[in-house]
Amino acid sequence: MRMYDIINKKKRGRHLSEEEIRFMVNGYTNGEIPDYQVSALMMAVCFQGMDAEETLHLTLAMRDSGEVLDLSAIEGIKVDKHSTGGVGDKTSLVLTPMAAALGIPVAKMSGRGLGHTGGTIDKLACFPGFSTALSKEQFYGNVNRIKMAIMGQTANLAPADKKLYALRDVTATVDQLSLIAASIMSKKLAANADAIVLDVKTGNGAFMKTEEDAFALAREMVQIGVDAGKQMSAVITDMDQPLGNAVGNSLEVKEAILSLNGLGPKDFMEVVYALGTEMVLAAGRAETPGQAKELLEQTIQTGTALDKFAEFVEAQGGDKRFVYQPELLPVGNIQLQAMNTEDGIVSRILAEEIGLATLALGGGRLTKESEIDLSVGILLHKKRGDMVRAGDTLATIYANDMEKAKEAYGKIVRAYEIGPDPAGEVPMVKGIIRNGRMVQ
Amino acid sequence: MRMYDIINKKKRGRHLSEEEIRFMVNGYTNGEIPDYQVSALMMAVCFQGMDAEETLHLTLAMRDSGEVLDLSAIEGIKVDKHSTGGVGDKTSLVLTPMAAALGIPVAKMSGRGLGHTGGTIDKLACFPGFSTALSKEQFYGNVNRIKMAIMGQTANLAPADKKLYALRDVTATVDQLSLIAASIMSKKLAANADAIVLDVKTGNGAFMKTEEDAFALAREMVQIGVDAGKQMSAVITDMDQPLGNAVGNSLEVKEAILSLNGLGPKDFMEVVYALGTEMVLAAGRAETPGQAKELLEQTIQTGTALDKFAEFVEAQGGDKRFVYQPELLPVGNIQLQAMNTEDGIVSRILAEEIGLATLALGGGRLTKESEIDLSVGILLHKKRGDMVRAGDTLATIYANDMEKAKEAYGKIVRAYEIGPDPAGEVPMVKGIIRNGRMVQ
Repeated sequence: MRMYDIINKKKRGRHLSEEEIRFMVNGYTNGEIPDYQVSALMMAVCFQGMDAEETLHLTLAMRDSGEVLDLSAIEGIKVDKHSTGGVGDKTSLVLTPMAAALGIPVAKMSGRGLGHTGGTIDKLACFPGFSTALSKEQFYGNVNRIKMAIMGQTANLAPADKKLYALRDVTATVDQLSLIAASIMSKKLAANADAIVLDVKTGNGAFMKTEEDAFALAREMVQIGVDAGKQMSAVITDMDQPLGNAVGNSLEVKEAILSLNGLGPKDFMEVVYALGTEMVLAAGRAETPGQAKELLEQTIQTGTALDKFAEFVEAQGGDKRFVYQPELLPVGNIQLQAMNTEDGIVSRILAEEIGLATLALGGGRLTKESEIDLSVGILLHKKRGDMVRAGDTLATIYANDMEKAKEAYGKIVRAYEIGPDPAGEVPMVKGIIRNGRMVQ
Repeated sequence: MRMYDIINKKKRGRHLSEEEIRFMVNGYTNGEIPDYQVSALMMAVCFQGMDAEETLHLTLAMRDSGEVLDLSAIEGIKVDKHSTGGVGDKTSLVLTPMAAALGIPVAKMSGRGLGHTGGTIDKLACFPGFSTALSKEQFYGNVNRIKMAIMGQTANLAPADKKLYALRDVTATVDQLSLIAASIMSKKLAANADAIVLDVKTGNGAFMKTEEDAFALAREMVQIGVDAGKQMSAVITDMDQPLGNAVGNSLEVKEAILSLNGLGPKDFMEVVYALGTEMVLAAGRAETPGQAKELLEQTIQTGTALDKFAEFVEAQGGDKRFVYQPELLPVGNIQLQAMNTEDGIVSRILAEEIGLATLALGGGRLTKESEIDLSVGILLHKKRGDMVRAGDTLATIYANDMEKAKEAYGKIVRAYEIGPDPAGEVPMVKGIIRNGRMVQ
């Protein structure tokens, strides 16, 4: 078998066999196939695409390039949740304790964020003493005992994907749906939960700008998971404005705690309940979506989700007082109000601009080596559909550097699109695909 | 400027500027831009193509990556000739002395062949003592004195093309017309003659299998040359069977000498006269194609072309007795007749199979390091349109190893397609493009 022939075959639009795909993935991972042949193949894939079978084989070959977790030590139906990423997305912080409070085991591998704000692991670093450096025994043990644990992603999970993604990133071959689907799913399948719930975001702040692309990506990922023997759901959700009101690490943790206290922003909670419903159904804890949602609501009303979160923080070495007294969480010393200059109705908030404003404040990571300032961020006071007058406060900037605050100010004002017309209600959930079937 | 953006632009089908193309070519040549980005770009070009302007800029950037010859020391209108390559193509050996005999200066840079048979330089090695390792002064001096010289291609002619071609060769990105045109023309423009005559071959033994592709390639190359200020002609010629009767180095030299004596095969001489006519017209030595052909015919009839060839061989250190006594040229010790097995008419001779048969005999080069056996080859006794009976000799194999001769035998028999119907006359010249206009 020769890599040349594999490239040429795909270039001519022909189907690659499982053997050919594994030959490529393994050869690239162990250094026998050079970068320049793989990048040529990736570009050919951008033009010719891959069918469902090829995408599955690529995913499985990348999964098998490293360790596949053995979760058999954990009792019950293990549920994992993944988001394709957006601005203000603190869903995991709320959803995981809600599910755990219902007895659903959530064993989550999480990466450090590279982008506008930190990832889940960075956000949890707001709790003094908190650590995700668990041994596997601790990880499994915690899930069995309190039904949730979050562990930093080990380097050896789907290393082929890591290498391939780094190459695609510098050769303009990232934005191909099947390659994206295979990349995400290879890591999820290596993490090896029984059920996987995907939050596929769409809109100006998402990687998938159009609903069409988001649905296509969701369908591909669900299909891969189903073919690999997993319970699969994908929820396509709105990212045409930041999710919730808080953007920035400690601000998002505060908003998560508010949400666990029943005070979450409406748009955010809609997404939490939609994803949570899929988790509860996948775990077999309810017969209907209505029942599932009711169970989830009870975890908030009775305070069990909040207590679960505190238990989880403590179990991983964090100070649980911060959960009950979120005012202890650090916020930037400079608080600057971003003011509105025209009357009208908010028609859109460019989520990416808000993300870049947070990054400018020091709340995100441009390179792997960047230090994050957990205390900075932006709290939005106006969201899509809100009526605003000139002089109203659009958002509060939390900063530790006045120059950076001013830079963020400009970005925030540019992010708000104010129009004359009342915006129609935009549904947060665009659709749900459950085990390959469109259910909403 | 970032290579990433250049790849992305071409991927989306957009036009690359001169600056972008030069940035890529220069960065790749000096090692600042890595292989894997260039191969991704090349694959994107395979799908999106390049327009005439981009192709010109790529060609000129590759030309300028190394030395551009200064031929001003040579008097007159310098004419160069290039063939896209085929089986049995000994055109240069005959055409160059014919042109030189008419006083047209031909300063030819030639590479060593990599393929079925050697290149022109290998063939000339049949003359004991012959050398193409000339200094530039010798090269220019010889052209001024006897109107022709052939020099081995210096490493520094269009080094960017060399590097890019090597990369395309292993990433399945060779067969893109604009890239092929730019590759050939970058070297021709660096060799810097005033007029360039291209022999673009089409058919089963050519790189361009279809006439459509051959015409498209010819048009692109002529356009590049015209835009670069050169006199340009392209002749599209048949390569659906080997050209002439001889394939293999010393056999081809013998056939060239026969041709200079007025005994050349009809198909071969048709191509020689068509290309020669373009050379004579480009050099301003005739007003009409008819006049040009007449002048060329006179060089054969009067023996001036043969004498010029002898003069040239001697001027580069070779033994000119071999020109007048071609029976001195080495031929393989084993001579095996390939026999026909069925009655009919030769409808086609798969030129590539004949080439591979010669390669099997040791007459060609698989890698740069291969040693060529100049004495082996194949002499075809039957060509397209000839009536054959079972038991007729199709070809004589000249070999130095019986096993290799047998291998060649099988290939030769497979190469002949014998059918019941008389084949119609196939024109050797499919078309002529002169300075951008189709003239035949």
